[in-house]
Amino acid sequence: MTRERLRDILEALSAGRITVSEAEDRLRYFPYEELGGVKLDHHRGIRKHFPEIIYGPGKTVEELLRIVKSFLERDLPLLITRVSSETAREIRERFPELEYHSRARILGKPRRGPRVGQIAILSGGTADLPVAEEARIAAEYFGNRVQTFYDVGVAGVHRLLSVAEELEKANALIVVAGMEGALPSVVAGLVDRPVIAVPTSVGYGAHFGGLAPLLAMLNSCAPGVAVVNIDNGVGAAYFASIINQMCIKKN
Amino acid sequence: MTRERLRDILEALSAGRITVSEAEDRLRYFPYEELGGVKLDHHRGIRKHFPEIIYGPGKTVEELLRIVKSFLERDLPLLITRVSSETAREIRERFPELEYHSRARILGKPRRGPRVGQIAILSGGTADLPVAEEARIAAEYFGNRVQTFYDVGVAGVHRLLSVAEELEKANALIVVAGMEGALPSVVAGLVDRPVIAVPTSVGYGAHFGGLAPLLAMLNSCAPGVAVVNIDNGVGAAYFASIINQMCIKKN
Amino acid sequence: MTRERLRDILEALSAGRITVSEAEDRLRYFPYEELGGVKLDHHRGIRKHFPEIIYGPGKTVEELLRIVKSFLERDLPLLITRVSSETAREIRERFPELEYHSRARILGKPRRGPRVGQIAILSGGTADLPVAEEARIAAEYFGNRVQTFYDVGVAGVHRLLSVAEELEKANALIVVAGMEGALPSVVAGLVDRPVIAVPTSVGYGAHFGGLAPLLAMLNSCAPGVAVVNIDNGVGAAYFASIINQMCIKKN
Amino acid sequence: MTRERLRDILEALSAGRITVSEAEDRLRYFPYEELGGVKLDHHRGIRKHFPEIIYGPGKTVEELLRIVKSFLERDLPLLITRVSSETAREIRERFPELEYHSRARILGKPRRGPRVGQIAILSGGTADLPVAEEARIAAEYFGNRVQTFYDVGVAGVHRLLSVAEELEKANALIVVAGMEGALPSVVAGLVDRPVIAVPTSVGYGAHFGGLAPLLAMLNSCAPGVAVVNIDNGVGAAYFASIINQMCIKKN
Amino acid sequence: MTRERLRDILEALSAGRITVSEAEDRLRYFPYEELGGVKLDHHRGIRKHFPEIIYGPGKTVEELLRIVKSFLERDLPLLITRVSSETAREIRERFPELEYHSRARILGKPRRGPRVGQIAILSGGTADLPVAEEARIAAEYFGNRVQTFYDVGVAGVHRLLSVAEELEKANALIVVAGMEGALPSVVAGLVDRPVIAVPTSVGYGAHFGGLAPLLAMLNSCAPGVAVVNIDNGVGAAYFASIINQMCIKKN
Amino acid sequence: MTRERLRDILEALSAGRITVSEAEDRLRYFPYEELGGVKLDHHRGIRKHFPEIIYGPGKTVEELLRIVKSFLERDLPLLITRVSSETAREIRERFPELEYHSRARILGKPRRGPRVGQIAILSGGTADLPVAEEARIAAEYFGNRVQTFYDVGVAGVHRLLSVAEELEKANALIVVAGMEGALPSVVAGLVDRPVIAVPTSVGYGAHFGGLAPLLAMLNSCAPGVAVVNIDNGVGAAYFASIINQMCIKKN
Amino acid sequence: MTRERLRDILEALSAGRITVSEAEDRLRYFPYEELGGVKLDHHRGIRKHFPEIIYGPGKTVEELLRIVKSFLERDLPLLITRVSSETAREIRERFPELEYHSRARILGKPRRGPRVGQIAILSGGTADLPVAEEARIAAEYFGNRVQTFYDVGVAGVHRLLSVAEELEKANALIVVAGMEGALPSVVAGLVDRPVIAVPTSVGYGAHFGGLAPLLAMLNSCAPGVAVVNIDNGVGAAYFASIINQMCIKKN
Amino acid sequence: MTRERLRDILEALSAGRITVSEAEDRLRYFPYEELGGVKLDHHRGIRKHFPEIIYGPGKTVEELLRIVKSFLERDLPLLITRVSSETAREIRERFPELEYHSRARILGKPRRGPRVGQIAILSGGTADLPVAEEARIAAEYFGNRVQTFYDVGVAGVHRLLSVAEELEKANALIVVAGMEGALPSVVAGLVDRPVIAVPTSVGYGAHFGGLAPLLAMLNSCAPGVAVVNIDNGVGAAYFASIINQMCIKKN
Repeated sequence: MTRERLRDILEALSAGRITVSEAEDRLRYFPYEELGGVKLDHHRGIRKHFPEIIYGPGKTVEELLRIVKSFLERDLPLLITRVSSETAREIRERFPELEYHSRARILGKPRRGPRVGQIAILSGGTADLPVAEEARIAAEYFGNRVQTFYDVGVAGVHRLLSVAEELEKANALIVVAGMEGALPSVVAGLVDRPVIAVPTSVGYGAHFGGLAPLLAMLNSCAPGVAVVNIDNGVGAAYFASIINQMCIKKN
Repeated sequence: MTRERLRDILEALSAGRITVSEAEDRLRYFPYEELGGVKLDHHRGIRKHFPEIIYGPGKTVEELLRIVKSFLERDLPLLITRVSSETAREIRERFPELEYHSRARILGKPRRGPRVGQIAILSGGTADLPVAEEARIAAEYFGNRVQTFYDVGVAGVHRLLSVAEELEKANALIVVAGMEGALPSVVAGLVDRPVIAVPTSVGYGAHFGGLAPLLAMLNSCAPGVAVVNIDNGVGAAYFASIINQMCIKKN
Repeated sequence: MTRERLRDILEALSAGRITVSEAEDRLRYFPYEELGGVKLDHHRGIRKHFPEIIYGPGKTVEELLRIVKSFLERDLPLLITRVSSETAREIRERFPELEYHSRARILGKPRRGPRVGQIAILSGGTADLPVAEEARIAAEYFGNRVQTFYDVGVAGVHRLLSVAEELEKANALIVVAGMEGALPSVVAGLVDRPVIAVPTSVGYGAHFGGLAPLLAMLNSCAPGVAVVNIDNGVGAAYFASIINQMCIKKN
Repeated sequence: MTRERLRDILEALSAGRITVSEAEDRLRYFPYEELGGVKLDHHRGIRKHFPEIIYGPGKTVEELLRIVKSFLERDLPLLITRVSSETAREIRERFPELEYHSRARILGKPRRGPRVGQIAILSGGTADLPVAEEARIAAEYFGNRVQTFYDVGVAGVHRLLSVAEELEKANALIVVAGMEGALPSVVAGLVDRPVIAVPTSVGYGAHFGGLAPLLAMLNSCAPGVAVVNIDNGVGAAYFASIINQMCIKKN
Repeated sequence: MTRERLRDILEALSAGRITVSEAEDRLRYFPYEELGGVKLDHHRGIRKHFPEIIYGPGKTVEELLRIVKSFLERDLPLLITRVSSETAREIRERFPELEYHSRARILGKPRRGPRVGQIAILSGGTADLPVAEEARIAAEYFGNRVQTFYDVGVAGVHRLLSVAEELEKANALIVVAGMEGALPSVVAGLVDRPVIAVPTSVGYGAHFGGLAPLLAMLNSCAPGVAVVNIDNGVGAAYFASIINQMCIKKN
Repeated sequence: MTRERLRDILEALSAGRITVSEAEDRLRYFPYEELGGVKLDHHRGIRKHFPEIIYGPGKTVEELLRIVKSFLERDLPLLITRVSSETAREIRERFPELEYHSRARILGKPRRGPRVGQIAILSGGTADLPVAEEARIAAEYFGNRVQTFYDVGVAGVHRLLSVAEELEKANALIVVAGMEGALPSVVAGLVDRPVIAVPTSVGYGAHFGGLAPLLAMLNSCAPGVAVVNIDNGVGAAYFASIINQMCIKKN
Repeated sequence: MTRERLRDILEALSAGRITVSEAEDRLRYFPYEELGGVKLDHHRGIRKHFPEIIYGPGKTVEELLRIVKSFLERDLPLLITRVSSETAREIRERFPELEYHSRARILGKPRRGPRVGQIAILSGGTADLPVAEEARIAAEYFGNRVQTFYDVGVAGVHRLLSVAEELEKANALIVVAGMEGALPSVVAGLVDRPVIAVPTSVGYGAHFGGLAPLLAMLNSCAPGVAVVNIDNGVGAAYFASIINQMCIKKN
Repeated sequence: MTRERLRDILEALSAGRITVSEAEDRLRYFPYEELGGVKLDHHRGIRKHFPEIIYGPGKTVEELLRIVKSFLERDLPLLITRVSSETAREIRERFPELEYHSRARILGKPRRGPRVGQIAILSGGTADLPVAEEARIAAEYFGNRVQTFYDVGVAGVHRLLSVAEELEKANALIVVAGMEGALPSVVAGLVDRPVIAVPTSVGYGAHFGGLAPLLAMLNSCAPGVAVVNIDNGVGAAYFASIINQMCIKKN
């Protein structure tokens, strides 16, 4: 569209329908203008492989309904995070075509087409499952094949070793851990794949809402670990998805 | 080697040279035993694409000399980080074949063979250069082609926009920034590639030694950003290298 | 008034109606006395351009009703912040002349007279709107013309560039941002106007209730940024208002 | 220049010297290209009222010499901050036309022309003087008239009250304070001018390198206070300068 | 009592009723034994001027009822802090002789006898009143005369100056302040009396639950300030009470 | 079982029923495979003296019911921590054989057999009882004899001295304290036994949810103190239990 | 003096030598003017019992020499804190009448006259002595009798108990402690006197430069404790001095 | 001695050489008196199994010489921590019988007699060796047999597994780790022995001087871990020694 409009102006000038000055005026803020406001989504839709991740908290049901409507009308895939079951119920009353994943707290509609490549998701304990599941659902929505390895925490390191060979098959690993957050270090010591570490807020006391595993992961003694925000399952999924899709495309 | 020894035991049993009980005893801790101690490096040498990154601080010149000798004898590539120019001089007196990169504070010997793929390294200001250069040298040592975009901080966002198209060519982007650490967010908004954010300790006052950009990067509003430790240029390079090499191999 | 009373005492002395000692006694704590207690508001009413901003939390409905009554009786403009919709409803039952702005959570009555000058308010995401709107309503109550630029976050920097020219028209800019708080740096790099940065508590995990954008804004690499407290929309509005009014008056 | 080049392309198209497609290609990244790289300084030189503030730490004498040379050749004013007396001596040996202010640790050359308007700088104690002086010299370099009120800390509030009337004459006030950082609150309660608060790292123990006054200033109970980073005298000066110059220009 | 038992043992030995070894055994842990267990309260009742301050939170109504009963039976004064109005109602149903101070959230029964000396309590804003009132009620319960100076915050320093002379009459000053916590510094600069500073949790954002005023008060530039925990009105009252009572007794 | 399977493979090889290659394949990931998945619990059941401590929070009643069923079917002892009375009631409706300890918030079934050795549990104040009781119940579930010394805080050090002799009888001491967390230091100065310090979140203001006693305990000036997480009564009990059981076994 | 000038103005008006307007002009800022500037010291010299405590760090030898000269000329007592032995030597070369206390790092000249009352200073370990000694010398300079009880830390609580009776004789106790900072709580449990707690920066690791004992002291479970800044021996001495002097004067 | 003196008094009374009153007077503060001052060491020498650990920093060479002399004269074992090689050299010039362990920075003289039992010391990386060695030397000085397992960090978990069986032989394990501090969790998952975790300050950036591993260790998901202060090797050794000695004695 943007290109078409640029072409229109240039053709109008070329055809003498407008003067150089008029063309100049229209072009001055052209690249900005076209990318601004509501038009942005289209742009992002082209440049990025998923249109927009909607962060649910702080939005009213009305606002969410408006967003959902806008996406469905344009037949775009949609992913809203951290949606309570109540809110999900209200929205699905009007848009029953949406899926709701209660543990992952995701409401949305996945990208069409087959899931490709391989992303592995590991988690330390069952309490980390909401975050791990947010990562899983999101990764699948973005069009990736996902394999999960839950409950492989470092307190029983044999559990992890028993799946080490499987992990090598993934293009990217998302490692979700609360408590002391040691899992990504051990995983990165085992496999030579990018490990995306997700600290969770699961813990108490000197856990300080996820600070303990966050710092642990940032200080990983094993190379090959990068970290996203506490509880940011969807962010890890997006990052892993870029890598996984790149590996696929390159083939 | 490990495989060979397993095979030896099994063949001895198969040939009746040892009893089932003797085989059992030898196998009991077999997989651990073979991977332990000094043999690990070989293992890592195979599994990972660079043998070992030596963290320089806290090691005496004598210890470093021993490490260098051991690597050179086995003809392995070598990368020692955070080496002062004095220490480098002392070591290079005995091992003149090593290179020293003073701004990156890296002493070592790169991996052989051509550099492949493409990693982009961006930095906000000139004060971030030691970290950016550590990332660059390390990425090159690991066998990657690197393109740098220095001094493209957010206070002059046009500088960044002017190189946006170039950035898309990289398989992974390392974005180094001190001060408020905003650069990775802006970059991730422009290109659909994995952005590895490196906060630096460049700043003062409420910067708290890199805490400010670290928190900023963890809270990036743009998806596609993962973070490594403050000033951890080499860690970012390793992470980017895994991705870049994967993209190459898949072809 | 204060002056009048001073003059009264001096004239009484000059006219011999009181002795030097009597005058001395009355004058000893004079400047304090006159400014003390409930009289302060008048003083502030003259010296400052808005009588008093009432911080709502921690005050009962009864206390708020008393304050409202006192202001309305004296026909003063009034601004109460962080008022819940329930509390607002209760108060407006008795004082229906008050306005309530639900998103900004402001209850009050604006200053009379035309709005002058120009203050620009920018925000990064829709979740920051309550704070941005608090700033907007407050700035208007204080008598300023306001133009808003919402949803111009750094993840899509083109949105911001497209309005850059408009921003130059403002005498002061209020830039509201949560998450990584990078917006003020980018804005201050574009326009040569005082940028008042407002970090918001919008975020989670390593956001630490607004600490992340607060630190980012304090460490802005672009000169021309000053910061107010997390979520302090009204404080930013007041600060911007002083500047805007000064620019107007000087003409 | 940018405009000229845009016009060139459009005229070439209008004249039929290039095709629509050729015009399209050249225009695609046009606004970025023109603003990028070394050309930025000119841009900033026009848009902003001082070319660039050079942050001294982390730059070698050689780098600083190159920067100085580049500025002096273009006859631009120059301000380098946090320069040690040793470094200053070395640089001035080659560029004796530069001034060095030892307490403010500023090396540079002021903007030409008369100083206009009025900025007031207050400080709590003598230990805050390096920061206050950095603000003063910088503000003067930027072309502002400055009046200083040093040693007016809150432990002797009468000192401050005695100068209250004077303060009202300034278009902006820079209030520098270490220890508990209470001075900006008291000042903002006295005068209706923008108060730019600068916390300093002067203190010990639970001062935590300036955290104590920083938090105090952000929580000021008096409206009209905005805060810059700890010890950021030059940042406060720049912010105050924008306001002061705006007040002047508007006349 | 303790002495009597010691004497009994010694007399038994002296009289030959027990052997040296038996005496030795009984005496070995003698001084501990006599001061231990439930006898402590009497001890404290004598040594300290108020029997025990009961911290309400975390105690069930049943536990509080038991404590109240025990104190009333022994006719001791009683002070329970941070009691909700609900809990207070339940307890007063059974013990109507107790007073409840809703703003101070104190339930109890004051010490008998006249209130002596003078303690001044100052507070910055109305939001600090619950803490200031806790201090006031507690100080009165401990038998001190109290004068309050509320709403004398530093944003209007004239209010404080107008009462400066009054403050000199107190033997100890309790200064309660939230926000930036600057009041104690200003007060200690005005009067030469011990200033007990109480930071409150009144604030938001970078207030961090009282951390801001706590740090400010610990860094007071005026000598003569000591600090108690955030919101610890009763602790300040106890400390002030010791001083005030000492001043009285000495006469 | 694991051993049996290893033996089966080796015997099959020895008997010529499988080839060396087949044996090799089966053995390659042998030690991992056998320890993986749900089989782990048995392993842990043998190696550790209590099968598994279930952390209650974040698990639904359904999940807890499943866990309880699985443990009871295998006749294993069971300990679920931080169970609300409501949840406990729901679970006990179906499994009435479980005990619920409301103050300790523990739901479970103790290990069979006599309680042995001696563990002492001390606490500073009554508000610390939930944590102290969690430690007590857990220690008893693990099969240890426990003696409690509650309400022996440092503000009345005589209480502690009176029980000093008793404390020497324990093989390990668990010292639970909130507020300033000074108790472990004083206890470790009195007895030469391992002191396991448990900070509690009991406190307010500058207590920061247990940070104050945590830091105090980590900095104990008395040797012989080690620390567990804030409020981690069960962790302290487990640690003390290992020591106590070791002392018993060695006899 | 101030009074005299006020009287002069009023008498001039009464006598008709000046008009009401002239009197008004002179009186307008009268109370400020008289207390401002250099006259403040005299004022403080009267109001406070020690003229001024000079904080040494950040002042050059020249500045200190100027201050010393000014005090000695007016024959005022003088106390400079945190003076290195080198600086002290330089200053005493010119002013040999000054004393230097190397452990306390105090340079000065005590107040004349006998030392009165009683202040007790306790410290936990020998490493806290510099702070304890700063408190002792300062307290003596301010004219107080001091008794010290060093090395009575809580790890050997018997040491403290053996001096408990002595402590009751003091009007105020300064308790200096690093490490876990438990001493003030134990002391306040023993004696009913104001306990001024001084945390020291003595410690390492999780001590965080004195944060550990600071938090411990603020959370003291024993009433009667107030806290000054980390290492602030002189501040504690000043606070104790006010109390001690008040007790004396009242007799 | 203490016992002897008590017996003397009692025998004197029993023999009629002193009256009951005289005995009473002498006994009144008896237990305190005898334990006070320099006599304490003897008491501790009996009750605790090592006389006193001297913390080196902050003590002058003269003070250390005095301490050494006093210990050697009484033929007591001695352990001084954190002694620089320079200081050690100076002291050993006069007391050549002392040993100095340069990596552990320990100066002293071990306890006589054979080393008993078994303590295992593990460390993650070579940079942690100073702390691990401090623990080892100290544990040996306290009379324990020690086995070390260095360089078994979690990034190569196989190294750790290969020694798992050996670890079971120890009565207590000291696990020293910097970086992310994950080692204790993995170890505690492998062996059912008390794991004493020692975080080290080895790391940079978001390591915050040991905070990262400290928090990780406190949040260990594996039961059986207790933590000592950052870098506190000697404290861990003391704690492990108590356990090891208890296990021996019980036999």
